[in-house]
Amino acid sequence: MKSYSVKELLKKQPIGEHVEVNGWVKTFRSNRFVALNDGSIIHNLQCVIDFENFDEDLLKQISTGAALKVTGTLVESQGRGQSVEIQATAVFVHGTADPETYPIQPKKHSLEFLREKAHLRVRTNTFSAVMRVRSALSFAVHQYFQQKGFYYMHAPIITGSDAEGAGEMFRVSTLDPKSPPLDDSGAIDYSQDFFGKETNLTVSGQLEAETYAMGLGNVYTFGPTFRAENSNTSRHLAEFWMIEPEMAFYDLDANMDLAEEFIKSILSYVLENCKDDLEFLEKRLLDEEKSKPQNERSDMALIEKLKFIVDNNFKRVTYTEAIEILRNCKPNKKKRFQFPIDEWGADLQSEHERFLVEKHFKCPVILFDYPANIKAFYMRLNEDGKTVRAMDVLFPGIGEIVGGSQREERLEVLQQKIKDLNIDEKELWWYLDLRRFGTAVHSGFGLGFERMVQFATGMGNIRDVIPYPRTPQNAEF
Amino acid sequence: MKSYSVKELLKKQPIGEHVEVNGWVKTFRSNRFVALNDGSIIHNLQCVIDFENFDEDLLKQISTGAALKVTGTLVESQGRGQSVEIQATAVFVHGTADPETYPIQPKKHSLEFLREKAHLRVRTNTFSAVMRVRSALSFAVHQYFQQKGFYYMHAPIITGSDAEGAGEMFRVSTLDPKSPPLDDSGAIDYSQDFFGKETNLTVSGQLEAETYAMGLGNVYTFGPTFRAENSNTSRHLAEFWMIEPEMAFYDLDANMDLAEEFIKSILSYVLENCKDDLEFLEKRLLDEEKSKPQNERSDMALIEKLKFIVDNNFKRVTYTEAIEILRNCKPNKKKRFQFPIDEWGADLQSEHERFLVEKHFKCPVILFDYPANIKAFYMRLNEDGKTVRAMDVLFPGIGEIVGGSQREERLEVLQQKIKDLNIDEKELWWYLDLRRFGTAVHSGFGLGFERMVQFATGMGNIRDVIPYPRTPQNAEF
Repeated sequence: MKSYSVKELLKKQPIGEHVEVNGWVKTFRSNRFVALNDGSIIHNLQCVIDFENFDEDLLKQISTGAALKVTGTLVESQGRGQSVEIQATAVFVHGTADPETYPIQPKKHSLEFLREKAHLRVRTNTFSAVMRVRSALSFAVHQYFQQKGFYYMHAPIITGSDAEGAGEMFRVSTLDPKSPPLDDSGAIDYSQDFFGKETNLTVSGQLEAETYAMGLGNVYTFGPTFRAENSNTSRHLAEFWMIEPEMAFYDLDANMDLAEEFIKSILSYVLENCKDDLEFLEKRLLDEEKSKPQNERSDMALIEKLKFIVDNNFKRVTYTEAIEILRNCKPNKKKRFQFPIDEWGADLQSEHERFLVEKHFKCPVILFDYPANIKAFYMRLNEDGKTVRAMDVLFPGIGEIVGGSQREERLEVLQQKIKDLNIDEKELWWYLDLRRFGTAVHSGFGLGFERMVQFATGMGNIRDVIPYPRTPQNAEF
Repeated sequence: MKSYSVKELLKKQPIGEHVEVNGWVKTFRSNRFVALNDGSIIHNLQCVIDFENFDEDLLKQISTGAALKVTGTLVESQGRGQSVEIQATAVFVHGTADPETYPIQPKKHSLEFLREKAHLRVRTNTFSAVMRVRSALSFAVHQYFQQKGFYYMHAPIITGSDAEGAGEMFRVSTLDPKSPPLDDSGAIDYSQDFFGKETNLTVSGQLEAETYAMGLGNVYTFGPTFRAENSNTSRHLAEFWMIEPEMAFYDLDANMDLAEEFIKSILSYVLENCKDDLEFLEKRLLDEEKSKPQNERSDMALIEKLKFIVDNNFKRVTYTEAIEILRNCKPNKKKRFQFPIDEWGADLQSEHERFLVEKHFKCPVILFDYPANIKAFYMRLNEDGKTVRAMDVLFPGIGEIVGGSQREERLEVLQQKIKDLNIDEKELWWYLDLRRFGTAVHSGFGLGFERMVQFATGMGNIRDVIPYPRTPQNAEF
């Protein structure tokens, strides 16, 4: 007898076949109808148990959360809500779930409650849908880049380099934490640490990805990165996954083309391959927003919002043009921005980015050519001497989702910038070598993966789109 | 004019087309022939520069490692060694590479020397080939599991759980390293650390993957894992990537079926998609082994060895049968094993595993049903009370490449095992919850990704198959 997943049975519908299926009980009604789910799909499979032919003790073991193996014939369903169901001839209970103690009962649980039960929350509809979409998005990333001839590169996680300055770092050590060895000057003697030097968790794989782009041509990273920032918000994690493509011989225009094509490609993949989950998540979001005031609700339903990205050209606008628009816009003049825009050089906040996307251009926007002093040291200086070849992709509801740039490929310009910022050039000897030997125009960008999962699933809190979120005061499991 | 990669030009051969190509100079002969490579493929593209029509100062800038943009017409080549070449009409030098200081000159460099230049070594044939194969293998992993309906799960990297006991761990902290806060008892007060508790880098994502398998059904992880072991060998890294599938409702037989199919699938992918690189790496290995005594050389050439895995059924043998074979085999009787096999219960070493694969069975082998006391606490106890449902996949030249098991799904049996091993049950409350609520037969295995890359590329030292190896006393870049 063939064993099937719930997804296979619902999609293939082998009517009349005697089949076996394993899963967990979602609900058990009237001592007869088991809604069985195995995580393969959002929908449940109805299993009809003719209770008169089953042992009463066995039936008592069937409750929400119990794991079953059901054997029976797949038939067309007479009931509403499903096209097929199993007429069970045998039921085996792998494991029970005591209704008195099992926390995931068939009722509405708050997302906060479920965060405390992160080891069980994937058994709920919401989290199983989110995690299936997350998996599909991950694969879409790999498929897109591989088909385009990019090579996947694993950037190091533990790093002895602390020059990027993208944020606070976590120290990695095996020294005795209470009485570490000291050197003659009384400082900690890191030469006795595992790696013979002070090491931290990476904040970005970009610099290492550049070294690979300058040999393999086009590469991308997809790995975990870390920020030890004490930000307890719904948008920040201490441990999150980043995607960082880096391309030799790409200028900023080519970089923007790639970012737009990439984003459309991965969201198209999800629209095509996660229809059931997206429909569920769209409905969930609508329900959730019913309790909110009108002005805090989404303008678009979830699937409409994804199609909005896929179907629209991204409008490309210089920072300078954007500042003009913002300075003269109604919300700025009426002082409705929390951070008013007065003059060129201001750093843009999410409220400004969202205004440009949602109200002014009504399409995704790529801002480029930012003031040098609000961007990172490795971005290529324009001929005007005051802007750099940076670009940010702005999304509705979020603001910045992708940040990238053409990299400074000129040795002297980069050295001067490093000097101006008081970065120790010795820390970056290998990065500078790329400009000493066979330097070339190159570009790249970074995408915080969890932000994209949030966008694709409509989940408001970033803690709910990664299996085990790490945030200040929280590293459970 | 269209810009192509070297790979596109060599594979598509658009003869007669006026094209543009960027890359780095591998060699420049007779002031006329540039071998250009952009990392897209192992082969170079010959660019013919009619030096009489070019500026002498420009020609002087062309040397090994320089980055060029070459424009010209693709023609059939008259020379040997290539079918097409570019007749250059224009050359732009992106960046030079001073032959006096550029380390990667066109001669044989030792792998040790190149490890010191890890930021440049991907510009060599050997490392570009290895890293392209690594990328292809990574994608093959994702494609295999996704097509099979598995969901990709990101296990946490920073963990507050230290119960698996798979090895020494790296501490992750933001406390003042020199004078950390102490509690009343004089111990370090980790409640003041970033996560409010002591945290480490993960040694395995398995336990968390189990929590997801018990909701999503079939999942796999592919992420970095860490061991703070002072092992300075050619087989150990402090930071390496692991693949860990975990499947609900899989028993050990299904687990072995999956492992065999998975391994064959990813190696088939590489055989199909990395032919050029494998041919180069096979030749490299043969050259390298010429200097070795006959008995240290590989029995099979690289591609033959990969086909050996793909084309043979994996022989399944119990540990008990294997011990009988080993006890009575010639090398054991003639005391040629470093670790003689005397009796049941002995842990197998690489020499024994290789004997079984290479000499006795002459095919890949899966050993299963190992003695409980040499395996991990979470493996399912057999009815005999002394063996567990563990399995190891053994490969020629390596020994163990995959280790897995059916997991202990019975709460009481697992609790007793945890107690016997003096593990704190409180640390594993969430892991035990899986056995409290809807427990079921489930299984999984782990593959150290770098070991597989070593096998697929024939590289002898694990430091040469990851971009930036982390080993004791080494975390450069």
